Amino acid sequence: MTGLTRRNVLAGAALSMSAAALSSARAAAPATGAQGPGVYRTKIGSYELTALYDGTWFRKIDEKFVRNASGAQVNKALSDAFLAPGIVPTSFTAMLVNTGSKVVLIDAGTGGQLGPASGSMLANLAAAGVDPKAIDAIVISHFHPDHISGIKTKDGAKVFPNAEISVPAQEWAYWMDDGNMSRAPDSLRGTFLNVRRIFADIAKEVKQFEPGKDVAPGIASIAAFGHTPGHSAFSVASGNQSMLVLSDVTNHPWLFARHPDWQGVFDMDGNMAVAVRKRMLDRAAADRMLVQGYHFPFPASGYIVKSGKGYEIAPVMWQPL
Amino acid sequence: MTGLTRRNVLAGAALSMSAAALSSARAAAPATGAQGPGVYRTKIGSYELTALYDGTWFRKIDEKFVRNASGAQVNKALSDAFLAPGIVPTSFTAMLVNTGSKVVLIDAGTGGQLGPASGSMLANLAAAGVDPKAIDAIVISHFHPDHISGIKTKDGAKVFPNAEISVPAQEWAYWMDDGNMSRAPDSLRGTFLNVRRIFADIAKEVKQFEPGKDVAPGIASIAAFGHTPGHSAFSVASGNQSMLVLSDVTNHPWLFARHPDWQGVFDMDGNMAVAVRKRMLDRAAADRMLVQGYHFPFPASGYIVKSGKGYEIAPVMWQPL
Repeated sequence: MTGLTRRNVLAGAALSMSAAALSSARAAAPATGAQGPGVYRTKIGSYELTALYDGTWFRKIDEKFVRNASGAQVNKALSDAFLAPGIVPTSFTAMLVNTGSKVVLIDAGTGGQLGPASGSMLANLAAAGVDPKAIDAIVISHFHPDHISGIKTKDGAKVFPNAEISVPAQEWAYWMDDGNMSRAPDSLRGTFLNVRRIFADIAKEVKQFEPGKDVAPGIASIAAFGHTPGHSAFSVASGNQSMLVLSDVTNHPWLFARHPDWQGVFDMDGNMAVAVRKRMLDRAAADRMLVQGYHFPFPASGYIVKSGKGYEIAPVMWQPL
Repeated sequence: MTGLTRRNVLAGAALSMSAAALSSARAAAPATGAQGPGVYRTKIGSYELTALYDGTWFRKIDEKFVRNASGAQVNKALSDAFLAPGIVPTSFTAMLVNTGSKVVLIDAGTGGQLGPASGSMLANLAAAGVDPKAIDAIVISHFHPDHISGIKTKDGAKVFPNAEISVPAQEWAYWMDDGNMSRAPDSLRGTFLNVRRIFADIAKEVKQFEPGKDVAPGIASIAAFGHTPGHSAFSVASGNQSMLVLSDVTNHPWLFARHPDWQGVFDMDGNMAVAVRKRMLDRAAADRMLVQGYHFPFPASGYIVKSGKGYEIAPVMWQPL
């Protein structure tokens, strides 16, 4: 009723306006009802990087979302971030790296399988003018579904038919092991099954990499185990510039960078995840490194600033390429 | 030479990669060399708002850029914002409001007349699917060239032929007065002349509004004098939601919101501009208002947080509409 009342007030105000301002009954340009493209480019040396927004999962949370913080504490952090209680808007942004000779995708998106507002990556790839067939390589940080499901359609077809897929060896060893699956808690069963859905029939084609190795020209893997057994970050370097791709070193930064001690339900080894998070964010802050985070708000890159016991994200300032 | 050396190293590393990863000499998708579209939509009640990025002016500054702060202090603030010294990347974002019955543009952009990286608004309007002819009304905050030059092409043709133009009465009275022009310092002469270039031949069509009045359905003007004699902010309200359009209450927020006492060379009445800035940012922080700033980094909206003696911008989290 508030809305109706307010509209009536506004309609009254409009009566006092000029006839010209009231000449059309409807706007000539109808509302679109859709967000603008989520495509943001950055130059790193001679490389062109394109952040591709894959949507947002409005994740309903309960008391168990953070193992070592109460629901009230999490809701306070959400409020501090101007977000509503009880829902963590978890956004997804994959990174496309065009080296000039190779087009490499770091993480493959949700495939639209995490709620109705996920899965915009392919539309944004099209908005960026890139055919999925043009992607030469996919580098995967870890095997949670929001990072690998986009490799295939729901029907099991390859979305990026020409891409060589590289994954962390430790991640492969853990998730593809049937013994681990049989011993895993029920909450992880879906993740194990999804890993098999994505990788089982293409297992022979998938390359495995060890941490510290180059996974593509100018892209080196960095061990960041803890979030998952083989979770990896990446450095992208060209010329004298670089970007640190943090993958899931922190989930939503306004929760887990501001509160780096918090162990989310998704951090499989919570203590190790926290130690890695602090070490990498400390390093990024000290060296004023340009970083990207898969769950940072789009365009998902910026800088890390130490603040009290936690870290703030200073988002990159949107500018021309 | 650093770059070359690094490329050689990377080339060496690439030799150890798989043959498949090296199969093509060039990427199938060439680098675009251009930024992605700067189009971001927000719903306010039943209204659809579209932030339109108009580019960035990489403004070279000297000791006089802030009247009451030294060049060293300004460079420190730039460094704190992870920006290079001596240049203020001043971005421009206009706001399109589709009320369902009217399409209203708040401020008209630079018209590409502030350096080679300005003037992307029309391309972004096209990316947003809106024909310039579909704009019913233009509401102007003040007469600085980056807010009005986009009304006309360089040849003097109207860019938005069907738009009724509304301007602050106090702004019109000041800038259109030839006596004021004759008494003005040389530094303002170009601004006076540009005002005449834009408005002289369409003077009879231009509507003038008083502060506090509705300027379009759901859009009310707010006196924010000081930056210029008639500088105006706006509230956009629909249903029980609203956005405060701050116009130039603060220029680059990482300088002038963090240091609200600073008087930029563009603040014509520096003391009044500072008083208005503090009053409006205090109010926005206390009421947790969604705000938009013409010179905020795109998408140029967010929330104001009091922090020490200044204010931080908490950028809106990019999400689906």
